Amino acid sequence: MHNDDRIVICESPDIDEAVDRLNEAFNEKRTIIIVGRCRVDYHGRASSKLEPGERIVIMKEDGAVLVHRSKGYEPVNWQPSGCILQALREEDCLIIKAIKRAPREVVTIFFDRIHFLSTFKLMDEGEFSLYASEEEMRRAILMEPSLIEEGFKPIDYERRVKPGFVDIYGVDKDGRIVVVEIKRRTAGKEAVLQLERYIETLKRSLNKEVRGILAAPVISRDARQTLLSLGLDFRRVDPKKCSEILKRKEEKKILDFFRHFTNA
Amino acid sequence: MHNDDRIVICESPDIDEAVDRLNEAFNEKRTIIIVGRCRVDYHGRASSKLEPGERIVIMKEDGAVLVHRSKGYEPVNWQPSGCILQALREEDCLIIKAIKRAPREVVTIFFDRIHFLSTFKLMDEGEFSLYASEEEMRRAILMEPSLIEEGFKPIDYERRVKPGFVDIYGVDKDGRIVVVEIKRRTAGKEAVLQLERYIETLKRSLNKEVRGILAAPVISRDARQTLLSLGLDFRRVDPKKCSEILKRKEEKKILDFFRHFTNA
Repeated sequence: MHNDDRIVICESPDIDEAVDRLNEAFNEKRTIIIVGRCRVDYHGRASSKLEPGERIVIMKEDGAVLVHRSKGYEPVNWQPSGCILQALREEDCLIIKAIKRAPREVVTIFFDRIHFLSTFKLMDEGEFSLYASEEEMRRAILMEPSLIEEGFKPIDYERRVKPGFVDIYGVDKDGRIVVVEIKRRTAGKEAVLQLERYIETLKRSLNKEVRGILAAPVISRDARQTLLSLGLDFRRVDPKKCSEILKRKEEKKILDFFRHFTNA
Repeated sequence: MHNDDRIVICESPDIDEAVDRLNEAFNEKRTIIIVGRCRVDYHGRASSKLEPGERIVIMKEDGAVLVHRSKGYEPVNWQPSGCILQALREEDCLIIKAIKRAPREVVTIFFDRIHFLSTFKLMDEGEFSLYASEEEMRRAILMEPSLIEEGFKPIDYERRVKPGFVDIYGVDKDGRIVVVEIKRRTAGKEAVLQLERYIETLKRSLNKEVRGILAAPVISRDARQTLLSLGLDFRRVDPKKCSEILKRKEEKKILDFFRHFTNA
């Protein structure tokens, strides 16, 4: 990154130098980090005021902006991608504006001291993969029961069945009771035996046929043999697909939350 | 910040130097920024994998950790406050672990190139104040109608009443129809006249008594005179209080979301 001038670090730049560096970085769509003393105003559907203090400001190549304090994982102010960024000097102050349109929302950062400013281009093509937990897989299956099979209808989850709790309890398209045991990694023999114990308990108490389905991304070879010998079923359920299902459903919620409540 | 050695900037440090700087920073509860090439693993209730690329990593004095890519306002990986941070060398790799307990969640960052590393103490006592929008004030009033008056029952909001939309439409404790007009800043004469127009329309169409309440943080002096002369009421409703009400109610939602879906 250094060789081709992809990184610029200015310690304690004066305001004019900072303005020059920032405008150069905005033009070249560089990512920017500033550490310094600032106050921040936000005006839009809501408004906020952050009194002076030392903070980290990140401005990304796509116009996203974050203001971070010394504590907590959440930014105190932020703007999403697509903002227009402006830097200017006003007396002894460096003013940075991040402007979002439709609806108009403006975050204005007033620096009176800059400890350092760095600009660079991040080369980043790496893929991100998120895999769900068993609880998340359960939620995804409850949202889309066809992940188990067509016509499957969940009735309950985490139902107490000795010796533990059944992940999902439901009926299949023929009205037979179905118990689903979920594993997020390779399902082994232990998972099969666990499922069998639930089924035995239920059969005894209900005096009915009960189907057992093991839902996991993959099943080990010996577990599959045991499963077949006990007359149970295996369904391949991909934790990644589950997390995508949840993400689609929950993205709306979180976007609504941020739209309505935080500053963008 | 420079004078008392509160800022350290290392350009292209080697791994041993980075490990030393990091351990020093963890001990002294300094905030840390690293820009470099890394991959990231997360294991906990869910798990994720981020393939190598150049990123910004922030570690805060309270143990919160953020991994940011070149785009978007959201971190790709993160950990909340309270993590235990560790740095070590493994062959040609700088490994940083952020460990959260109960439930255990671990984010591991593997750097194979460090462009720069900076550590510092942020002095930040500045207060943050968030003020609600009119829409948010409306939502807060719908959640807590006693913000208007005891016994007030909202029936509808954004109800079409010529020449526009009534913010909140409801009944008071005596069963009288109430129209609430919300302003997030000083309510002026125009707001009073707007409310009066809604009331006139409603009175004509319902042939009933209709009360008008103007809800705002403050009302201008001449607006108050007009308001009194028209027999309308003013209620002081503080946008900041509204945003606190929403925050209390929504914090749970967002925490649930993050707990269930993202990595901490």
